[in-house]
Amino acid sequence: MTRTAPIISVDAMGADNGPSIAIDGIYHILKRRPATSACFLVHGDAVQIEPLIAKLNPEIRGRITLHHTDSEVRMTDKPSEAVRRSRGSSMWNALTTVKNGEADVVVSAGNTGALMAISKVVLRMKKGVHRPAISASWPTPRGHTVVLDVGANVECGPSQLVEFAIMGEAFHRAVHGSETPSVGLLNVGQEELKGNDTVRAADGLIRDAGLKFNYKGFVEGDDISLGSTDVVVTDGFSGNIALKTAEGTVKLVAHWMRESFTSSLTAKIGALFLRMGGLDHLRAKLDPRSINGGVLLGLNGMVIKSHGGTDGEGFATALGLGIDIAGSDFLAEIEANLTRLKEANESRDETAS
Amino acid sequence: MTRTAPIISVDAMGADNGPSIAIDGIYHILKRRPATSACFLVHGDAVQIEPLIAKLNPEIRGRITLHHTDSEVRMTDKPSEAVRRSRGSSMWNALTTVKNGEADVVVSAGNTGALMAISKVVLRMKKGVHRPAISASWPTPRGHTVVLDVGANVECGPSQLVEFAIMGEAFHRAVHGSETPSVGLLNVGQEELKGNDTVRAADGLIRDAGLKFNYKGFVEGDDISLGSTDVVVTDGFSGNIALKTAEGTVKLVAHWMRESFTSSLTAKIGALFLRMGGLDHLRAKLDPRSINGGVLLGLNGMVIKSHGGTDGEGFATALGLGIDIAGSDFLAEIEANLTRLKEANESRDETAS
Repeated sequence: MTRTAPIISVDAMGADNGPSIAIDGIYHILKRRPATSACFLVHGDAVQIEPLIAKLNPEIRGRITLHHTDSEVRMTDKPSEAVRRSRGSSMWNALTTVKNGEADVVVSAGNTGALMAISKVVLRMKKGVHRPAISASWPTPRGHTVVLDVGANVECGPSQLVEFAIMGEAFHRAVHGSETPSVGLLNVGQEELKGNDTVRAADGLIRDAGLKFNYKGFVEGDDISLGSTDVVVTDGFSGNIALKTAEGTVKLVAHWMRESFTSSLTAKIGALFLRMGGLDHLRAKLDPRSINGGVLLGLNGMVIKSHGGTDGEGFATALGLGIDIAGSDFLAEIEANLTRLKEANESRDETAS
Repeated sequence: MTRTAPIISVDAMGADNGPSIAIDGIYHILKRRPATSACFLVHGDAVQIEPLIAKLNPEIRGRITLHHTDSEVRMTDKPSEAVRRSRGSSMWNALTTVKNGEADVVVSAGNTGALMAISKVVLRMKKGVHRPAISASWPTPRGHTVVLDVGANVECGPSQLVEFAIMGEAFHRAVHGSETPSVGLLNVGQEELKGNDTVRAADGLIRDAGLKFNYKGFVEGDDISLGSTDVVVTDGFSGNIALKTAEGTVKLVAHWMRESFTSSLTAKIGALFLRMGGLDHLRAKLDPRSINGGVLLGLNGMVIKSHGGTDGEGFATALGLGIDIAGSDFLAEIEANLTRLKEANESRDETAS
């Protein structure tokens, strides 16, 4: 649903460093986006959170509604345990407000496995999707590449990869605005002979699905950052490794840059001019906190997973993503794509019989 | 074998852009390393290559011995075809000179699958290794992380990952000089519960192998660039995706940097100072051609695979790696590690019986 003011449901107990991260995040996102009318339903331990809210200015306080919860999902909980024991936790309650229509989207920095499992129970999967996928929007010189799955499903069959393609295509159109997003399947080589059995089978399935898709076939790891296709589909094992490797590489290059900028007096003077001339923009781009937030796709509701170890600035990025997608119609786009797949399958079956 | 002057056997017909890449590469590496006494056995079509050599100065010409070949392995050849038809090709002959002891190491930019298959036939595998792995040495703030496999084996069982760990550990000690290199297994999370069946089984096998190994357990994608462990072990599918993603990310950051340095007059002045104050060093680090060259491990001989699409500067980097490893004893180190594994297995079997 779309409201004039997006309502973000926040699981305040998920971050590794406690509820101050979520409250700090709200402070930072409202500073970054002074024009937003977003409001926040904060779920968590009132004893810890009330003093944090009390320190904020009245304008920000007015955007927050606190819902006390007695329990929380721990990082060590296995998904199955979490589902059994999490009723009434900050994560469960945050998801329930989205289910009930009180909020548009959930943001949680909690345990990924538990968030997926509890989301499935509370929000339920869309018909035709087997498990949620986590999508990341990776910056490129031309916009964003949507990469999925980046860690929800470590082992995926070919038909799951087809579901990811459909959901990623819909998500890119709804959130990043391409009319007909191009889709690639991550592999180790562009020749059709290369790759493992699963990606070869998925490639065949996507081609045969009868969807009028802008499908480009196989892409390689460097195509993610180049933006060769709008969507890159992969299993959660390779996708997570690609995402983390890219994050590590950005950190490495930032380290080299700092080293180079302080290597001599002349370099230091140069860096000073650069700082005056727009270096902060580059620095912000290289800040890992500027790309925090994976969207769970395939559910009847919008859920964002933040890094567990993030700080307030990073959590604010995930909240900003929440504000952006709250106003998008990506759930409807995914629904439409799933219907297209179903119809294509049916008409193919009819032709075959 | 180690000679005073390393002898590099060059497959000059492998690069996408023809034999000029290899000859250019020799020119650039001798310019970069004026002190080296390396000599080059160049294998390829004399009609194309002689005029290229004729243009070089006499000092460089004196380092090159040309061996004419009538045929070459094509990028489109399947490995099995290549093995049948490649006798007498530049790739086959380059490998044969290493087998015969006429050269220390082969450098080829040819078809990866064919290079692996022909290497296996000409040089043979070390006892106890099933298939060659390709290792890449990735720069970190603390030195180099050896990542393997980066594309030779798209599907790997747990025992193959153990072989990679053993070979990578030996390679790091011999080439990058750690006394007891630390080894990590690439996964999607550090908790032992996470990951797929193969990495969990490999983790158990490495722990149980009885090797006195500095094994650190699971690492994640960002650990590669951080240098958290000296060696990162993974299957060729994930490894290739990680390597290519890192390459793409470096290109993206370099693009942002150029954008930032030219975004205003003040920034341009800053960039000018930086150029005078050591920016070239950073620029060289960000140049993908500065990290070209994967080493095939597991063979009775040293083989380096260069990117097919590289230019002379990039091929020179692969030749430089050849010069470095020609003087190392990594084959003996791998041999020693394989013996340790065999002994550990035998003593465990005895204890069990």
